[in-house]
Amino acid sequence: MLSPSSGSLGRDSRDKGLYTTVPAPERLSDMDTLERLHAYWRAANYLSAGQIYLLDNPLLTEPLKPEHIKPRLLGHWGTTPGINFCLAHLNRVITERDQDMIYIAGPGHGGPAAVAHAWLEGTYSEIYPAVGQDAEGMRRLFRQFSFPGGIPSHVAPETPGSIHEGGELGYSLAHAYGAAFDNPGLVVACVIGDGEAETGPLAASWHSNKFLDPSRDGVVLPILHLNGYKIANPAVLARIPEQDLLKLLEGYGYRPHVVAGDHPETMHGLMAATLDEVFDEIAAYKQGRTDRLPMIVLRSPKGWTGPREVDGLPVEGTWRSHQVPLSGLRDNPGHLAALEEWLRSYRPEELFDADGRPVPEILGTVPAGERRMSASPHANGGELLRPLVLPDFRDYAVAVDAPGTASSEPTRALGRLLRDVIAANPETFRLMGPDETDSNRLSAVFETTGRAWNAEILPTDVNLAPGGRVMEVLSEHLCQGWLEGYLLTGRHGLFNCYEAFIHIVDAMFNQHAKWLEASQKIPWRRPVASLNYLLSSHVWRQDHNGFSHQDPGFLDVVVNKKASVVRVYLPPDANTLLSVADHCLRSRDYVNVVVAGKQPVLDLFTMEEAIAHNTRGLGILDWASSDDGGAPDVVLACAGDVPTLETLAAAALLREHLPELKVRVVNVVDLMRLQPPSEHPHGMADAEFDAVFTPDRPVIFNFHGYPALIHRLTYRRTGHENIHVRGYKEEGTTTTPFDMAMLNDIDRYHLVMDVVDRVPGLRVTAAHLRQRMADARLRARVHTRDHGEDGPEIRDWTWPG
Amino acid sequence: MLSPSSGSLGRDSRDKGLYTTVPAPERLSDMDTLERLHAYWRAANYLSAGQIYLLDNPLLTEPLKPEHIKPRLLGHWGTTPGINFCLAHLNRVITERDQDMIYIAGPGHGGPAAVAHAWLEGTYSEIYPAVGQDAEGMRRLFRQFSFPGGIPSHVAPETPGSIHEGGELGYSLAHAYGAAFDNPGLVVACVIGDGEAETGPLAASWHSNKFLDPSRDGVVLPILHLNGYKIANPAVLARIPEQDLLKLLEGYGYRPHVVAGDHPETMHGLMAATLDEVFDEIAAYKQGRTDRLPMIVLRSPKGWTGPREVDGLPVEGTWRSHQVPLSGLRDNPGHLAALEEWLRSYRPEELFDADGRPVPEILGTVPAGERRMSASPHANGGELLRPLVLPDFRDYAVAVDAPGTASSEPTRALGRLLRDVIAANPETFRLMGPDETDSNRLSAVFETTGRAWNAEILPTDVNLAPGGRVMEVLSEHLCQGWLEGYLLTGRHGLFNCYEAFIHIVDAMFNQHAKWLEASQKIPWRRPVASLNYLLSSHVWRQDHNGFSHQDPGFLDVVVNKKASVVRVYLPPDANTLLSVADHCLRSRDYVNVVVAGKQPVLDLFTMEEAIAHNTRGLGILDWASSDDGGAPDVVLACAGDVPTLETLAAAALLREHLPELKVRVVNVVDLMRLQPPSEHPHGMADAEFDAVFTPDRPVIFNFHGYPALIHRLTYRRTGHENIHVRGYKEEGTTTTPFDMAMLNDIDRYHLVMDVVDRVPGLRVTAAHLRQRMADARLRARVHTRDHGEDGPEIRDWTWPG
Repeated sequence: MLSPSSGSLGRDSRDKGLYTTVPAPERLSDMDTLERLHAYWRAANYLSAGQIYLLDNPLLTEPLKPEHIKPRLLGHWGTTPGINFCLAHLNRVITERDQDMIYIAGPGHGGPAAVAHAWLEGTYSEIYPAVGQDAEGMRRLFRQFSFPGGIPSHVAPETPGSIHEGGELGYSLAHAYGAAFDNPGLVVACVIGDGEAETGPLAASWHSNKFLDPSRDGVVLPILHLNGYKIANPAVLARIPEQDLLKLLEGYGYRPHVVAGDHPETMHGLMAATLDEVFDEIAAYKQGRTDRLPMIVLRSPKGWTGPREVDGLPVEGTWRSHQVPLSGLRDNPGHLAALEEWLRSYRPEELFDADGRPVPEILGTVPAGERRMSASPHANGGELLRPLVLPDFRDYAVAVDAPGTASSEPTRALGRLLRDVIAANPETFRLMGPDETDSNRLSAVFETTGRAWNAEILPTDVNLAPGGRVMEVLSEHLCQGWLEGYLLTGRHGLFNCYEAFIHIVDAMFNQHAKWLEASQKIPWRRPVASLNYLLSSHVWRQDHNGFSHQDPGFLDVVVNKKASVVRVYLPPDANTLLSVADHCLRSRDYVNVVVAGKQPVLDLFTMEEAIAHNTRGLGILDWASSDDGGAPDVVLACAGDVPTLETLAAAALLREHLPELKVRVVNVVDLMRLQPPSEHPHGMADAEFDAVFTPDRPVIFNFHGYPALIHRLTYRRTGHENIHVRGYKEEGTTTTPFDMAMLNDIDRYHLVMDVVDRVPGLRVTAAHLRQRMADARLRARVHTRDHGEDGPEIRDWTWPG
Repeated sequence: MLSPSSGSLGRDSRDKGLYTTVPAPERLSDMDTLERLHAYWRAANYLSAGQIYLLDNPLLTEPLKPEHIKPRLLGHWGTTPGINFCLAHLNRVITERDQDMIYIAGPGHGGPAAVAHAWLEGTYSEIYPAVGQDAEGMRRLFRQFSFPGGIPSHVAPETPGSIHEGGELGYSLAHAYGAAFDNPGLVVACVIGDGEAETGPLAASWHSNKFLDPSRDGVVLPILHLNGYKIANPAVLARIPEQDLLKLLEGYGYRPHVVAGDHPETMHGLMAATLDEVFDEIAAYKQGRTDRLPMIVLRSPKGWTGPREVDGLPVEGTWRSHQVPLSGLRDNPGHLAALEEWLRSYRPEELFDADGRPVPEILGTVPAGERRMSASPHANGGELLRPLVLPDFRDYAVAVDAPGTASSEPTRALGRLLRDVIAANPETFRLMGPDETDSNRLSAVFETTGRAWNAEILPTDVNLAPGGRVMEVLSEHLCQGWLEGYLLTGRHGLFNCYEAFIHIVDAMFNQHAKWLEASQKIPWRRPVASLNYLLSSHVWRQDHNGFSHQDPGFLDVVVNKKASVVRVYLPPDANTLLSVADHCLRSRDYVNVVVAGKQPVLDLFTMEEAIAHNTRGLGILDWASSDDGGAPDVVLACAGDVPTLETLAAAALLREHLPELKVRVVNVVDLMRLQPPSEHPHGMADAEFDAVFTPDRPVIFNFHGYPALIHRLTYRRTGHENIHVRGYKEEGTTTTPFDMAMLNDIDRYHLVMDVVDRVPGLRVTAAHLRQRMADARLRARVHTRDHGEDGPEIRDWTWPG
């Protein structure tokens, strides 16, 4: 059925001189295979264009009419044929070498390519039986694309074989490396668009090869796809001298191979020969014969094989191919005819039988079963996920004889737990962080592992090792991207970060949360391990740093995402942190944000109490309260370690100075408990909330972050008018911890003043106490200004009894 | 006073073999100058260490005692001597060539260096007279550093000569390029830390040279400072083969010069000779004799000249120098002695006279007046700021005969205004955007300018030109960083961006807002032009894209910053957008966020009405209301173009179906008006708020973003219990515009249902209407699912008249 002669590759056999055309090398002489590849490519291109344009008449069995065309033409043709080209050729390698492989489509706008590929491989119809591998299935495949009730225009969770959302650009290569870690047999082919290559995260990702262990990890094959244009502009890497480009890629530590041209026949030969060479080099790398991995530069026209010109303007090979090269088809017979000519140029009648099934000849290079990239379990990581082997976190408890009488560094305790998590899961758990694991006092992990490092090691270095489970690079983007790729391929991890700088990955968090939100609605996507953040070195204790390091606003970004996905925990001491961490490491499909300091804080809970407290998510601290289980005059609520400390100190001051006042102290660990159950699955029923916070008494809520968040979470509650929140109000500099608290009015003295102000009657009867507190603040400030330190009574404070 | 022999450069004349030491070239034979440079460097290093350690005894006139030492040792020594080295040498070039220059200290942790330098240059004492250039001034200089009530530990707004906060890393090189644009005589020396070099934004910034115009722009001189270590880890670029490093930098388009070693004498000679060569190359570039700019790789030990070993562990040249190499000094006599030895190794008695003044010999290479980098007006951009020449925005008005009867694309109207702003300010205004200027329909700007582009240009390209005022690169980080650098050096600009992807620069926004917050408190920092964001292609109209492009949460990040800095505008039509834009372009020291769609929306206001409406910030739309100026039964409030459209449609439906119902329609342009005056300077008094929104009637607020933000802003208002907010609730995909509205319940039909639900009595009397609305929703959805388009009555809707 395929045209026999090698000159018959189609009307797109041409060379416009825009691109260097290199003669096909001799080495790969199996033209039959090349013809099949070309036919597969034509089929994929046809199916891609069909998705963008056709409502009906999928096989062009009748002349194209306006009613066959979608009313809204949405999608991106420009990058699609290049992705199809790569996928077709990668399939040959998989088949010939029985290679375990997945791909990442960085230009995710090429959604039609990934979908076409999955349909040709049969996976699509297996997963979505309504979209069969036949004419009716093809009609549905076309219709659903970018269509209400259908599938998104980008590579998305709905796309079989993908772990990478196409939309926000920059993360493809980091995701690819994340997928490759601890998958020694896997090759992750990563198509990188030349637009995406201009982004910072992508530019940083090239250096991920310094963190790859040849023996324990798989291989990433970057395919830099220079089609020359972004939306409306040329791309930088496509327009620098080739010599600069090659130096750049060699400087990144790769061995680049260039595949350039626009003549399909030549390009098929060149790509196939190059891939053979590249996979030979990969084999040499895996055998230790070279330490340098190859990559491919693919220079091909944007919108390749699409309309050359429309309305007298060049389209193929320019930015005009970015979205839909032809539009207004329903009202423009010329454009409609051009579309028909374009679609028929792929000769669909040769590619699909009368029933719309792909003819066997074009599927010759398609792998079988799970070797199909669209069916790889790596790309549906939940299928491969095994629970972590977790030591009993209770074994790491700090001893607590009485609450508030001794101190611990919470993250140091967590470090011991993480050390043993790493030891027990040597191939499925990684700890990411931008060079802050020691600074965040998780150093115990280095008793069992090193930092992944595959560059030069000097005698003075410590804790560096290829294959180390701790991954430190001064790029939050890379930490996040690696971890996402690692999790989405079925493994586990934790990202520890300075709190302020987690904002660097706000956008990546958003995209990952959206991925999880969408995945939860897709039955065949199996749950993956949660993305766990440990935010330490937080706003209240930036001792070496200043205002730039003080920002607790990530939580505000997080709560905008769906309640089915986000969880926020603020454990106030070491034991609650251990229990929270255990919970997070067992969870699935969430983003867990844990905020916990590294500086010593009072130990408040025995482990049994910590578990009970965390299970409730929030609770009354009886021992710190003076309401004897009855109705309080005021509630002192707190969330976060430093605010909790100050709240307890305020309660002690009140106990001392206003012994008659009934004070209830409430600590909140699970911030989502504050919301109603209608807003979040962790939400507390109103009656229960009222029982804890009272419906009518003043609540002074001392919060770790920006105060508005507490109002946001509680504004539907009965007593919300009485909730007065203290928190970070954007006051800061390099100063002492207590001065930081005072600058933002979260300090113990100010809390007592708040109580005096809010509890009816106290403004008069306790005016003297209020003045004493104001005086104490002044003294503390003067002491700090004079001596450069907090007063000893502030630093060494413990709960009185 | 200086030791005469060339062998006397100090105890730090050594070579531990860790670094390549290259013999000093012959060319720069003026050893007297080198000796002076070395003395200057010793002085700067002494002053830096003094800041970190000393409370008193600044000149070491007596033996060091524990009480001379600060109680909290905070700061970062590691990077400091390297920055001092660069600044000393750059001064010589400035002096010899009368070169206009500023520097950016990427390793902002080197705050002590920048401060020491400003003090030596005399600028510090001019700006802060209390810190004189004498012994008492030196004592105060030391004491204030990282001390409560003093100055931050990082390079900060308080630091003379800086436009770059040191803290969050990654933006130095983008800031440097931003400063260089349209400053043809300026050289911006940019010291880049090897830690920072691992970040994405920095990695992307190297390619900024493709956007630099040799004739209109200045020059950036990157100095990549490889001191080998981050906080606890080696740095990647310091550990790759030198051949890879040089290829990488050449691939980025630079001509790298390596200055490597640890022997001060050698290094001084090498650095001086290299700088001579580099500035000759820069001169050749400015004369058009080369198109390739130089850069420097400076390889020197971390913590250079600091303690070699402490407690038997190597410190100089390792990560242990990162913060304070010696600690616990008050209780450790050995460490105290080591500190004294270290400080005395600089021989302060040679550098400062008995009164603490720097001896004249070491100031020989220090420039005078505004040539001092610490006194450059470029680094206090407000000093150079001239107001934009602004055309009368009213001339760009769209004609509005009656509200809501015709449509315009707001951003297209804005494009015409921006075109003429660009034309009228050809050297002081730039429009940044990640390749979205056309997509956001600002295309009129290309009638007067091109896109800045200094790489290859092909015949098919359009609108590319060196020196173009539009800067498009697919990196939001670069757009933001360039614009920050441009603004902080006294110019103007606007950043247009897809709304969802502005989250990519959340962290940069935070840091810039903090810079402005801090600067507003510093009298000598003159106001700079505001950073203006235009967020278009917003959540409600992502026609070609899907869920990944739908996120209006940047506003939630913005409102966490100080009210003195942030402004948010949601103009609902073309004329309000024009008026808002004019206001923003005239403003100073703010971050203005303007959200406006590119798709056609109803024209609601004549220009006079638009000005009046914007001046009030929010107002009742009388023509759309049916309360006849009396008390309404319900308020329909709205903010944002699409929500306003749906609100007007709902009002029309209510007018038709419930003609007796008194409906008031309120539109909010200036979101900050919703807050009380105590929270924001734009805040509306309670009485005024109540007069508009009523204290007791139901308010259905249709909002552009996440609903919680409206609750956050209004929760102190009398009637806040009655405010029911609709907005984006994280439901989306690739679908029609009206389907998007329906998915999130902001559509007209649902608003009518909300009115029925909320207005007392209507649930019974208008049950039929409610059902009709629910049916209409269902019909709309079915139509969309069947036809892939919104129903015509939804698309072509206008206000009834």
